[in-house]
Amino acid sequence: MGSRSRCVARFVCGVALMLVFGRLCSAQGDNLMPQPASLVRQEGRLEINGGFRVALEGYLEPRLQKAGSRLVDRLAQQTGIPMDSALSTDPAQATLIIHCERAGEPVQSVREDESYRLVITSRQARLEAATPVGILRGLATFLQWVNLDRGGFSAPAVTIQDKPRFPWRGLMIDVSRRWIPKDVIERNIEGMAAVKLNVLHWHLSDDQGFRIESRRFPKLHEMGSDGLYYTQDEIREVVAYARDRGIRVVPEFDMPGHATSWFVGYPEIASQPGPYTIERKLKICDPAMDPTREEVFSFLDSFIAEMAQLFPDEYFHIGGDEVNGKAWNENADIQEFMRQHGMKDHRDLQAYFNQRLLPIIQKYGRKMVGWDEILHPGLPKDIVVQSWRGQQSLADAARRGYMGILSTGYYLDLMQPASLHYGVDPLGDGAAGLSKSEQDRILGGEACVWTENIDAENIDAADWPRTAAIAERLWSASDVKNVDSMYRRLAVESRQLEWLDLKHRTISRKMLEREVDGADNTPLERLDEVLAPLNCDIRRRVHHYTSLTPLNRLVDATPPESDRAREFAGLVEHWTANKQQIRAQLSLWKENHAKVVPVLQGSALLQEALPLADDVSAVATAGIEALDYLESGKRAPKAWVTQQTALLDRAGKPEAELWIMIVPPVRKLVEAAQAEK
Amino acid sequence: MGSRSRCVARFVCGVALMLVFGRLCSAQGDNLMPQPASLVRQEGRLEINGGFRVALEGYLEPRLQKAGSRLVDRLAQQTGIPMDSALSTDPAQATLIIHCERAGEPVQSVREDESYRLVITSRQARLEAATPVGILRGLATFLQWVNLDRGGFSAPAVTIQDKPRFPWRGLMIDVSRRWIPKDVIERNIEGMAAVKLNVLHWHLSDDQGFRIESRRFPKLHEMGSDGLYYTQDEIREVVAYARDRGIRVVPEFDMPGHATSWFVGYPEIASQPGPYTIERKLKICDPAMDPTREEVFSFLDSFIAEMAQLFPDEYFHIGGDEVNGKAWNENADIQEFMRQHGMKDHRDLQAYFNQRLLPIIQKYGRKMVGWDEILHPGLPKDIVVQSWRGQQSLADAARRGYMGILSTGYYLDLMQPASLHYGVDPLGDGAAGLSKSEQDRILGGEACVWTENIDAENIDAADWPRTAAIAERLWSASDVKNVDSMYRRLAVESRQLEWLDLKHRTISRKMLEREVDGADNTPLERLDEVLAPLNCDIRRRVHHYTSLTPLNRLVDATPPESDRAREFAGLVEHWTANKQQIRAQLSLWKENHAKVVPVLQGSALLQEALPLADDVSAVATAGIEALDYLESGKRAPKAWVTQQTALLDRAGKPEAELWIMIVPPVRKLVEAAQAEK
Repeated sequence: MGSRSRCVARFVCGVALMLVFGRLCSAQGDNLMPQPASLVRQEGRLEINGGFRVALEGYLEPRLQKAGSRLVDRLAQQTGIPMDSALSTDPAQATLIIHCERAGEPVQSVREDESYRLVITSRQARLEAATPVGILRGLATFLQWVNLDRGGFSAPAVTIQDKPRFPWRGLMIDVSRRWIPKDVIERNIEGMAAVKLNVLHWHLSDDQGFRIESRRFPKLHEMGSDGLYYTQDEIREVVAYARDRGIRVVPEFDMPGHATSWFVGYPEIASQPGPYTIERKLKICDPAMDPTREEVFSFLDSFIAEMAQLFPDEYFHIGGDEVNGKAWNENADIQEFMRQHGMKDHRDLQAYFNQRLLPIIQKYGRKMVGWDEILHPGLPKDIVVQSWRGQQSLADAARRGYMGILSTGYYLDLMQPASLHYGVDPLGDGAAGLSKSEQDRILGGEACVWTENIDAENIDAADWPRTAAIAERLWSASDVKNVDSMYRRLAVESRQLEWLDLKHRTISRKMLEREVDGADNTPLERLDEVLAPLNCDIRRRVHHYTSLTPLNRLVDATPPESDRAREFAGLVEHWTANKQQIRAQLSLWKENHAKVVPVLQGSALLQEALPLADDVSAVATAGIEALDYLESGKRAPKAWVTQQTALLDRAGKPEAELWIMIVPPVRKLVEAAQAEK
Repeated sequence: MGSRSRCVARFVCGVALMLVFGRLCSAQGDNLMPQPASLVRQEGRLEINGGFRVALEGYLEPRLQKAGSRLVDRLAQQTGIPMDSALSTDPAQATLIIHCERAGEPVQSVREDESYRLVITSRQARLEAATPVGILRGLATFLQWVNLDRGGFSAPAVTIQDKPRFPWRGLMIDVSRRWIPKDVIERNIEGMAAVKLNVLHWHLSDDQGFRIESRRFPKLHEMGSDGLYYTQDEIREVVAYARDRGIRVVPEFDMPGHATSWFVGYPEIASQPGPYTIERKLKICDPAMDPTREEVFSFLDSFIAEMAQLFPDEYFHIGGDEVNGKAWNENADIQEFMRQHGMKDHRDLQAYFNQRLLPIIQKYGRKMVGWDEILHPGLPKDIVVQSWRGQQSLADAARRGYMGILSTGYYLDLMQPASLHYGVDPLGDGAAGLSKSEQDRILGGEACVWTENIDAENIDAADWPRTAAIAERLWSASDVKNVDSMYRRLAVESRQLEWLDLKHRTISRKMLEREVDGADNTPLERLDEVLAPLNCDIRRRVHHYTSLTPLNRLVDATPPESDRAREFAGLVEHWTANKQQIRAQLSLWKENHAKVVPVLQGSALLQEALPLADDVSAVATAGIEALDYLESGKRAPKAWVTQQTALLDRAGKPEAELWIMIVPPVRKLVEAAQAEK
């Protein structure tokens, strides 16, 4: 689902959900994210110091040994205390004993047992799990559980029993529209493991780029990638890296549409003769494979055989979305084929394509995954449907016996607040009425990051920390849904994720500094802290974008969610108690105007933001005046209210592809000033 | 020079030089650091956009091709504009033409021609140099020269002719006392190249660790490194990486002292039988090689033969510092040997050792470098003396015909302000009276980072941006010494260096966040912004440190120089014009007290900083009261002055190994309040 009809409700939802105000505080031991299934605190604490050692018991394998050493390295990094990451051979002397019962599956599957039990006493910690993957989940918990207080670093005594609610918890990364290098993928895998996600869905080909070396069809990567692709060795390294962290890698090769990049080197598999060039436009493209020619299927057979060697996962994602049929309509031979086979439209032809693809995929021991559109009668029940259409679509499939995963509501590129994603439950809404066995067919969900307006530089900020909120939704019990608690823990986890070298917390500042040419960017940061980017789909409607357009403007540097505006909205919720703080905050934004305007004027990348600066200052002034009325006890005059409402209406519209996120809370102040006697 | 008698004048100098106030502003095109020898601005500007291409002319080699592509990659990163890094084959169409005349030396030497000429017109840029190294220097200039203004990214038209003042401009990194991994070394090499340094002096062995794989003597790294060492492949990669960036790599193996880590595996080359363990204490250690035994020299012959294979540089650094003679005094055989050879003290025996070492080094085609102590009559004139004792010592050597490089005044671990380093000239002070030919023997200098109290986590903050100020001192003309200009450009360059993945600007925040356990650290940052760490030598006197002590306290997170305090001191210099700003700033520091105290109380790592928080608040209050008197026109009463002076005297002393850097400017306000009628 690249460029498509996504929900435009960002602003409305953002405002509604933004009103929860999560203040940071670090209560001992309740920073876990996702929250575990069961947690019982005990008396005491296990001191964490330079003598920390790990010992392995029970079943042994290199994955466990690496995980044990990695835990010590991370703990050393997190605490700043040098530690010896060599495993201890004496469990009695170890700080943490890891006891794994048995080997996991040779290829981790959706059925892998991920449960674990972590018992910490003041003397020792013990982590038990049936499988290495369970151990990995428990180690992620342990790292989050260690905290610092006035007594030093420690792991409070506790008994945690934990297992996931859903078995398929993924992050999809589109590396086709914009190239995302291997190191970025790997650090995102680290982040995924930290929040117990277990599937990297790798969207490897699309109209805008074919991103993997094919030795059987070398023109795929040679001509379809601008030289930006993963070698097969790199793919193997990433797959191994992911496995070491308990993460499956599901490759997606989108077909029969979203495939222009294939046709640059191999026009013979397309529905038109070509020639083709790599698509730069970001839209639903017409080119599609030709399902009427046997050579296409023998090509795909050979290609999938090669890819199956690289990707051991039992699932193979064929995309299958957004085939508009134009390429088929414009080819007389294809039309004739359709007539002969009694197909009434392109959906039937796509069903035929999938039916032909299915045995090829099965021949290599794989099961099919695809977007909603692939679902047609006649497909076996072991396929998985990934829904960008919503729970209703999943529920319908489940009732027909099909398994599914949800991505609606989890599109990170829509720049929605974490709270919105957090509120989306794969078993909610249209799936609410399912029977237990139907519910079991809904395997989980995947956060998705489509890269039309996101690139290797700012993808971490798109992914994190919001993905952690989705991860909690998919791991924790359905009643874990306190948004306040989520935001408090999300802030802690966001800092924690930075130790994995994720750039989500630094990239915005660096990009803003670029925009002011290396000068002090304090005024720009103050302006930016109340802004949030427009939904990427809408961005493409108001501005011309291609896959080569520089993403170096203010909107690109602005984090998806304005924490500051959310906090401010929280203050305004209880404005009678927070007048002084509200006034101080509004004054800062108002007074920033004089400082930020010359900065914006001086930079070609920032001039478009001048109206935003004017509006932020005006909105802040409106808020201060509203406070004046509220404090004076006088009701605000009608003319003033009319004027402010007009201002807020104007400032509530996006400018330079950015929203001013303090408009709704200031509107609340204006309304209160109007109501006051 | 690890732990030794370094100048303790940090505070005095810091205060004196801190008073220069460099405000940030980004004037077009004068951000170059180091400043070039000659720069003439022309009319017009060369637009930088996605069509930017580089073409090579003249002499070609892979180093140039890589440099051209790297330039494009960096420019793309710096501007956020996707660019094609493939070199253009059509110079007429290229944005930048690189014309190199000839090959450089097969092994870059201190005599390598580094000059270049960069001519930019509104149509095209042309970079000419005799050698690839000259081209590399010009490319560093080009990257700094590109700027952003209201018209977009451009390189203003200019003619720059440039060459270095000194041929030896280095950074020494001690990887023995604390382990510094290869990736950290490489990103520091990138930083060096950006500011035109040309020597990485790699301090590879010392009492606390032997950091390189030796195949001839494997017990060196196996037993002397805790497993933390570079493999020979890694060494070759770093040497090649450095050469690609025009940087020589001079290895140092400190001998005959500072060598305990050698003796763990090979006690037979020591003066006492042992056994030895890796030294953890940070002090001048007694163990030394035994110069009276032939086996020692055959060991060294074989070892140096192996190392010469890895390090092609013409110089080989033997350390030679701080041999205290105790190990020799306590060995009767050695005493007897000294008597027989008429040696009166350990200095004579060390001279003998060096005399024996010299032909070995020469045998492998290398020249000797060593610290001051190696200089004894009889050494050939091609050795280089590295001085930690000062210009006088260098000048004395130069008068005797010896070459030298200066490190006094460039010790980054002393945590002195950039302005102090910037003021140190290799030809200044004791070297001021040298003749031209004697001056020519002073080859340059090296910044040094000794790692007793610095580790892989915070080394970037020790190195950068201050090393850029030293780099300018060594590259630019002696009259380039405006501290205000230096600080302005240093701030810009510091941001620029961040694109090289250096962590100097982010690590402090991350370490502070660790200390507050992932919570909001705004109050702690506000406290920390007025602090600066104590000189590392003094730290070791007031606190027990070993090479394994965690460096996770407030002092370790605090950047070497407080920019905020320097700016504040600048405001106070002209307090009559800045009263409002001064008051606002002081109020922030005063009001922070209530917020930061609970944060400090809650963390075992921060409790020691409580007195600092009290003092900062009290000092800020004193400053506000002084302003009150100044604004009232009333002279401050004597009792008040006495009280404030006592406060400032107390707060002027370090606490928790940190200085409060606003004490001197507030003292100035108090003095002014006292003087006022």
